[in-house]
Amino acid sequence: MTGWLKETGPQSDIVISSRVRTARNIEEIPFPHSLSEISAKEVVEKVYHGILVGNTGFKDDFKLIAIKDLEEIDRLNYIEKHLISPDLAKNTVIGNILINTEETISIMINEEDHIRIQCLLPGLQLDQALDVADKIDDLLEEKINYAFDEELGYLTACPTNLGTGIRASVMLHLPALSLTGYIQAVLRAAGQIGLAVRGIYGEGTEFLGNLYQISNQVTLGVTEREIIRNLHDVTMQITEKERAARKNLLNTKKIELEDRVFRSFGILKNARKITGNEAMQLISDVKLGASLGLIEEVKIEKINSLITMIQPGFLQKHYKTSLNSIDRDIKRAELIRNTL
Amino acid sequence: MTGWLKETGPQSDIVISSRVRTARNIEEIPFPHSLSEISAKEVVEKVYHGILVGNTGFKDDFKLIAIKDLEEIDRLNYIEKHLISPDLAKNTVIGNILINTEETISIMINEEDHIRIQCLLPGLQLDQALDVADKIDDLLEEKINYAFDEELGYLTACPTNLGTGIRASVMLHLPALSLTGYIQAVLRAAGQIGLAVRGIYGEGTEFLGNLYQISNQVTLGVTEREIIRNLHDVTMQITEKERAARKNLLNTKKIELEDRVFRSFGILKNARKITGNEAMQLISDVKLGASLGLIEEVKIEKINSLITMIQPGFLQKHYKTSLNSIDRDIKRAELIRNTL
Repeated sequence: MTGWLKETGPQSDIVISSRVRTARNIEEIPFPHSLSEISAKEVVEKVYHGILVGNTGFKDDFKLIAIKDLEEIDRLNYIEKHLISPDLAKNTVIGNILINTEETISIMINEEDHIRIQCLLPGLQLDQALDVADKIDDLLEEKINYAFDEELGYLTACPTNLGTGIRASVMLHLPALSLTGYIQAVLRAAGQIGLAVRGIYGEGTEFLGNLYQISNQVTLGVTEREIIRNLHDVTMQITEKERAARKNLLNTKKIELEDRVFRSFGILKNARKITGNEAMQLISDVKLGASLGLIEEVKIEKINSLITMIQPGFLQKHYKTSLNSIDRDIKRAELIRNTL
Repeated sequence: MTGWLKETGPQSDIVISSRVRTARNIEEIPFPHSLSEISAKEVVEKVYHGILVGNTGFKDDFKLIAIKDLEEIDRLNYIEKHLISPDLAKNTVIGNILINTEETISIMINEEDHIRIQCLLPGLQLDQALDVADKIDDLLEEKINYAFDEELGYLTACPTNLGTGIRASVMLHLPALSLTGYIQAVLRAAGQIGLAVRGIYGEGTEFLGNLYQISNQVTLGVTEREIIRNLHDVTMQITEKERAARKNLLNTKKIELEDRVFRSFGILKNARKITGNEAMQLISDVKLGASLGLIEEVKIEKINSLITMIQPGFLQKHYKTSLNSIDRDIKRAELIRNTL
């Protein structure tokens, strides 16, 4: 199981994970969308050598995988674990990833940009994630000439990434703000200060399981640390609001809350078939119950890991077989029962 | 716990209980609705002596209770256990019951008729219930002159009871016929052959928990044994249909059925508040699951007893306090959790 899921970090009653992603491109090589296969190979070689040559510690820890060598199920599973993007998963010609054993660092090669360094850590650890991404970035910069402009900063395929090339995000679990409806005001406020809010699997996933991904949109005219600091501060504010809403629910609607939490727990431990969407909602309830100490028999890490375990890719990988939608519902219920 | 609930009997995967009730009146004493308190006392005395004097076995087993001496909660509890009628419960002037320890025999005195002998047994035991009711009836007839007419048979306050004065009923659990919708045809057929179908607590209780009370309506021009035989045969036919429907569900929708049964079980074991209606539905699912061997950890008797335990009267008696509707939902959930 991926590092950011099997462990907890600071504020992890609410903040599931922190992610920093750095977009970089190599000078004098066309962006991936107009890249020849030969030049694409050259990009892979450069990144591979940049990171692994002369860094013996990394050599054993990282592996290079060509997307075309991955089974469909593995590609899906990597997407579910947020280690690659859906776009990279489709790129079976020139797409590659360099990934560490713990799966906290993944470097996408020849996605929209030549290089996308991603660090994903449990809990609220944006600074730490940036430190790791910076370290990889520095290693690469020793051997690679990045496409860089004095005025625009790091050049990227899409202008929204120009400048620092940094995208930072946190994944928050906000069940109490969702239950009370106060989440709408929080989302509006986040939008007004230039943050984007998405569901766990990007736009259109509608905040399944009360999970909210919040990320910076501005990359130009600010420093890396400013981006991180801003997102960190907003996250802390939202976290305080969520905690206050949870406390309020406990004070004013304890029985209703316990009832909801335990019913969801009971269903998860007993269902014989369950859709992903329903499971996400029930897991959200149980996670809330565990965070508040109402449910003591299940650890937060186990509940967090369930979020990924119930996804189609993980299920099919776990059961080593391709599963249709009905079979997945059955196996999902089985895996949840066995886990809880 | 009442005898018919804590034990099982023949066909008790489907037939919860069998009941025979005999209406009798004493010659030359007005019917209860126009009875003086003094004459009413005389009726009580006659019944009491008729059954208990010279029958030492009965003396220790039966107790005579005046409705006016019962707490409101106890009256409710007796109604829920089907030991007295709601009408008798309201009769705090002249209403009495003579009841045995096992609560399988209850004799209502001064309800609509002077005497209503009721025998309630677990499972399909109509003949046995009639045997018991007849035995009590014979004992009383030795000492009491019943109001009887050569042509009309036993005279009763309401003409629908004339003749044998016998009302026989069975309580059936028909979840599979309900789920498949086939129950409608069964109910129509029962009506066409002169049987009445009601919910567990009489008309208007809408077949809560998929429980159906089926009883004869004709009492005149047939013998006691014919009434019993007819109801027994119809019950066996319905029981076979229910069993076939269950088998068919198991064959064609096993996972869906298991899912439903176990989810209901999970909710019952975990809910922190639950209404009576919801509990009845979930208990019905669990009972079905237990009957089919899907759930092995709970005995049918325990599930049957839950049906009465979740009722307002039982709850308040158990917790020795008057409970409002919200408190009842909380205590109901607690009692169910502790029982399962």
